[in-house]
Amino acid sequence: MKSFRDIKIKRQLQAILHVLANSEESIGSERISEILRLSGIELTDRAIRDYLILTDSMGWTENLGRKGRRITNRGREELETELVVDKVGFVSSKVEDLAFRMDFDLSKKQGKIILNISYLKKEYLSKYINKIYQVYEKNLGMGKLLTIADEEQTLGSFRVPKNHVAIGTICSVSLNGIFLRHGIPMTSRFGSLVELEQGEPKRFTQIISYDGTTIDPLEIFIRGRMTNVGSATKTGNGVIGVSFREIPSVSLNKAKELAKEVEKCLLGGILAFGTPNQPLLDMSVPYGRTGILVLAGLNPIAVLAENGVEVVSKAMNCLFDYNSLIQYTEIEKLVKKII
Amino acid sequence: MKSFRDIKIKRQLQAILHVLANSEESIGSERISEILRLSGIELTDRAIRDYLILTDSMGWTENLGRKGRRITNRGREELETELVVDKVGFVSSKVEDLAFRMDFDLSKKQGKIILNISYLKKEYLSKYINKIYQVYEKNLGMGKLLTIADEEQTLGSFRVPKNHVAIGTICSVSLNGIFLRHGIPMTSRFGSLVELEQGEPKRFTQIISYDGTTIDPLEIFIRGRMTNVGSATKTGNGVIGVSFREIPSVSLNKAKELAKEVEKCLLGGILAFGTPNQPLLDMSVPYGRTGILVLAGLNPIAVLAENGVEVVSKAMNCLFDYNSLIQYTEIEKLVKKII
Repeated sequence: MKSFRDIKIKRQLQAILHVLANSEESIGSERISEILRLSGIELTDRAIRDYLILTDSMGWTENLGRKGRRITNRGREELETELVVDKVGFVSSKVEDLAFRMDFDLSKKQGKIILNISYLKKEYLSKYINKIYQVYEKNLGMGKLLTIADEEQTLGSFRVPKNHVAIGTICSVSLNGIFLRHGIPMTSRFGSLVELEQGEPKRFTQIISYDGTTIDPLEIFIRGRMTNVGSATKTGNGVIGVSFREIPSVSLNKAKELAKEVEKCLLGGILAFGTPNQPLLDMSVPYGRTGILVLAGLNPIAVLAENGVEVVSKAMNCLFDYNSLIQYTEIEKLVKKII
Repeated sequence: MKSFRDIKIKRQLQAILHVLANSEESIGSERISEILRLSGIELTDRAIRDYLILTDSMGWTENLGRKGRRITNRGREELETELVVDKVGFVSSKVEDLAFRMDFDLSKKQGKIILNISYLKKEYLSKYINKIYQVYEKNLGMGKLLTIADEEQTLGSFRVPKNHVAIGTICSVSLNGIFLRHGIPMTSRFGSLVELEQGEPKRFTQIISYDGTTIDPLEIFIRGRMTNVGSATKTGNGVIGVSFREIPSVSLNKAKELAKEVEKCLLGGILAFGTPNQPLLDMSVPYGRTGILVLAGLNPIAVLAENGVEVVSKAMNCLFDYNSLIQYTEIEKLVKKII
């Protein structure tokens, strides 16, 4: 049997489990091989079959005969553990990847958007749900839609751990996807903390560039308890998560029109458009480009961490069906069902 | 009286408090104005005197008449609070600033090096000091020297809060300073987590570029509990903090000689030299340059966070006298004195 100490094997095993976790139905080694090839991993059907025998024996996959393999709950857990090695990837690449893959159609109001997933102990949900509600109410969240999944349910490829609940919030990268489908290439430059004064963005207090980090900046700010979304919600003064984007200045008018359409779909999250070629909040842009401030999708989650709740967030986690999301105004009803 | 809501005023007040905190003696408004000018802040003596009347009235400074002002303990506390606004600065600029300012002389073994400061509740010190010891023993710290300050003492410009102790560890940027003084311009590219296998660096698991972040990458990894220095110390397998540096390939031989001298001064922390122009741990370097892996100065602190101890770290905090540091082998004696 192959030794688990070999880092290359660990990586390939993880890749196979990932494919299975992201597949809604059971699939065979041939299909797995095809999907892996698309992400740059070359493995023969034969090699994959060997791995699958191994994963069967570990209880991570289930052999359904001619229908192929299915990932088990233990396999999903394994994917979540730290034993499984992640490939180093810069956030900027992930942004481009997801923006290209999402297929939300603005006129039909259907398709998939990009979801952040955060999970916390179930006991905290009812106590803090009202604070989450307020962030949306004060227009500090990205869009007006979200979703909640109970313990042991799945959200995308994420299985909610026992005694926990998961909250899915709209990732602001969904805007990149929508803009891209309308011919506007939006570049995500950095994630930041922005000080609000009386509801107005005043200045950046922290900045982390997407092309220089493998961890999502907002996850970092939230884990480090550096936000103050709660105060921003209550008084208009506080520190919130904001993403800095750029678009070609020539597309600014079209972008503003699109932003109105996006707003109607309850996906609006643009805090400010800059002026062509001019700095936005002291941050300069190259000639020919215009800066945009977009509210972080995780702002409603940040208030949980601010209140001392242990919450783990995975930004840009998966693609998720737009029509399975609910409006934040319905959230308390949904929470009552869960508890 | 000036309103504290004005962000510009907050910034200028902070700058003045910083100057006072970094000055060993009391100083007057003229001297403060000179020092501020060097860091790009233009304020007239008159304006500074106005501010000092304000800070006196807040109890942050003390008027010593002709000798000028001195910062009070309340003023130092104020500097630590989040109310005081930090200027956005990228870590790469701070690296260059400190490397230029430090003056450690390798042949005389004297002068100032750069210190990280971490503080924790005093009660945890004796319980975990042995774990810190082991990180140095297994050569996973930066150098072999450190310092500890008791509650209400100061370490550089940092005043240790009540019931806490502060640990000063050598910041790996000290190497940049030493190399610079010997004609080798060392560039700090990114902070990272590196997986060790049987004591050997295997691969990067997370990366944050210094020129794209305003928060030190190692502080981020430690706060996020993403390290596993404890396991690396015990078994040789784990995840540790490493900084990726580059030097001109032409200076590689001299750099290796220097590294030996540095080691003799107990400041050694180079984990690996790359090969000229070749990738190091899969990370490519521009033609004409060579990569270097340097151990993070905060690795010994990371074990505290891994054990659930709340510890706040400030990387690259201040310049500190080399001869005031102690060897890690003396640390248990020092701890006994403190407790």
